[in-house]
Amino acid sequence: MKPIQNDRFLKALRREPVDRTPIWIMRQAGRYLPEYRALREKAGSFMNLCQTPELACEATMQPIRRFELDAAILFSDILTIPDAMGLELSFTQGEGPKFAKTVRSMHDLKALKNIDAKQDLSYVMQAVRLIKQELNGKVPLIGFSGSPWTLATYMIEGGSSKEFNLAKSMLYQAPEILQALLSQLSQAVFDYLSAQIEVGVDAVMIFDTWGGILSPQAYRSFSLAYMREIVAKLKAKHENIPVILFSKGCAHSLDEMADSGASALGIDWMTSIGAARQQVGGKVALQGNMDPAVLYADPDKIKAEALRVKQEFGPHPGHIFNLGHGIHPDVNPEHVACLIEAVHETL
Amino acid sequence: MKPIQNDRFLKALRREPVDRTPIWIMRQAGRYLPEYRALREKAGSFMNLCQTPELACEATMQPIRRFELDAAILFSDILTIPDAMGLELSFTQGEGPKFAKTVRSMHDLKALKNIDAKQDLSYVMQAVRLIKQELNGKVPLIGFSGSPWTLATYMIEGGSSKEFNLAKSMLYQAPEILQALLSQLSQAVFDYLSAQIEVGVDAVMIFDTWGGILSPQAYRSFSLAYMREIVAKLKAKHENIPVILFSKGCAHSLDEMADSGASALGIDWMTSIGAARQQVGGKVALQGNMDPAVLYADPDKIKAEALRVKQEFGPHPGHIFNLGHGIHPDVNPEHVACLIEAVHETL
Repeated sequence: MKPIQNDRFLKALRREPVDRTPIWIMRQAGRYLPEYRALREKAGSFMNLCQTPELACEATMQPIRRFELDAAILFSDILTIPDAMGLELSFTQGEGPKFAKTVRSMHDLKALKNIDAKQDLSYVMQAVRLIKQELNGKVPLIGFSGSPWTLATYMIEGGSSKEFNLAKSMLYQAPEILQALLSQLSQAVFDYLSAQIEVGVDAVMIFDTWGGILSPQAYRSFSLAYMREIVAKLKAKHENIPVILFSKGCAHSLDEMADSGASALGIDWMTSIGAARQQVGGKVALQGNMDPAVLYADPDKIKAEALRVKQEFGPHPGHIFNLGHGIHPDVNPEHVACLIEAVHETL
Repeated sequence: MKPIQNDRFLKALRREPVDRTPIWIMRQAGRYLPEYRALREKAGSFMNLCQTPELACEATMQPIRRFELDAAILFSDILTIPDAMGLELSFTQGEGPKFAKTVRSMHDLKALKNIDAKQDLSYVMQAVRLIKQELNGKVPLIGFSGSPWTLATYMIEGGSSKEFNLAKSMLYQAPEILQALLSQLSQAVFDYLSAQIEVGVDAVMIFDTWGGILSPQAYRSFSLAYMREIVAKLKAKHENIPVILFSKGCAHSLDEMADSGASALGIDWMTSIGAARQQVGGKVALQGNMDPAVLYADPDKIKAEALRVKQEFGPHPGHIFNLGHGIHPDVNPEHVACLIEAVHETL
């Protein structure tokens, strides 16, 4: 296998000089691409798409073939871990993820399987191997996992939620159950990311999609503390692996995140990336943060906003351009091409 | 009519010493109260409850009779203005607000009625008069309106939204239409709050529920700028009226909000009220900010969290205790009584 040819993304993660700003896009392999929709249909179910290594590899590669992206990200779902633990994940059209079982008591918690990622999530490991072959060094591959807190919200609620009443009730009413769940998840997330690294991913990202529904105090105790533990263990085992932490809506704790040992922080669009850089740019690279809705606008408006975000970050190094959240499924793919061009055009 | 007897809330708004921390609760007149559910059923529709002054007065008074609250808030909906402008508001069970018409073009915008609040929202003015009589000086009455940006999101989307794609598309693609809409709404919000003040409310609050979906830059241009204009006009016309600004999820702009001329800022539970006080407590009072989900926990946990919030704010003056967002409809009313007691217990 060839060494990585386009290493802009990895350099930016180390805050080293780059020839142009690297860009990748959260959910770049997804429904806005017609070729993805065809693949999704062929797969039958979303779970089958995730669990069939050849299909997951194909989904990962689609945006890399179409666009000048500087990194690929493993096509998978954040809920593979709770599924492997025995909660039986399924996706119903338009309703999002559903678990057949939930975790709402110590009894439920004890019924969870202690997973061995290499074995119980072997389909993910096989997908990583295939993707690395297929990429053949073109761009780096990002592996990922949901954060313990974010996984816990789905496991407690049984799926997506608007107010997260059950998860937050547990936090305030029975924190000891939540802590036990988070500890078990932390072990699983570490094991999962470590296994992905061993089969070849070049960086890993932890998605803490729901950190922002917590108070700053609760975020630090029930989300960041567990991610910090995972980062420390990953760094101890895989010295040079870059880790990106992305807690959406948690700008209140940028300093604490920057001290977590992570190489980079994901920045949502509700945060000023200029202010974030001033605050923590001496310690970590920053990844973000254009409002995904900008991609609904015309190319000239997209270019103007992309430049605004770059200017707000300021001169290199240490910026990985991305959206502030996943790309919307109804975006025109040509607008994505236009964004990538605008980001690459100027240093 | 008697002068206000319990003026803790008004004193705290002016950052004057108080005997104990005042508390009121966002959506204190609402579904968690069995007497509200009975009234709601009697009213037939939610709109009829809002538009019948006697019923709106009764809803406002219910929590004041039951609890030792330090302020009443007019029972109404934030969408009365767009309804009066001609969009035809209705509420369907479990689906939230729906407009029969939307505003997505200059053509739609021109079809909007220029409202005169005293006349077109006379049912609100009549409700305020009745409530003031009924309160008879017991506690102050808060009037309110949605912010121009928050109203605009509903008017563009046609109801509630998850991603606000249409509103944000307009912001990036056709800002001139959005600005024209926001200007017209600002005039209406000013007129509406001014009319409420003339018929007797003791303070007004602007709810910017959706300011937090914007980037900091967009928030300042498309939400805060218009609220600032409203505050300035209110202060010019009604010298001593306290104005509370509440932009949920906008802690990035606390300084700018504190410079808006508002007397107090609402603080959501994702913001540290201690840090907010350090930052802007010399300029404004702060209202908040316990996580509404704490009310699901047992009384002893509720007390502990209430004390934590008070301690985080620190010693008086300038704190109005509240939740960081509206109370959830499935909360036990006894838990509310316990919260109020805990807040009043210690200075």
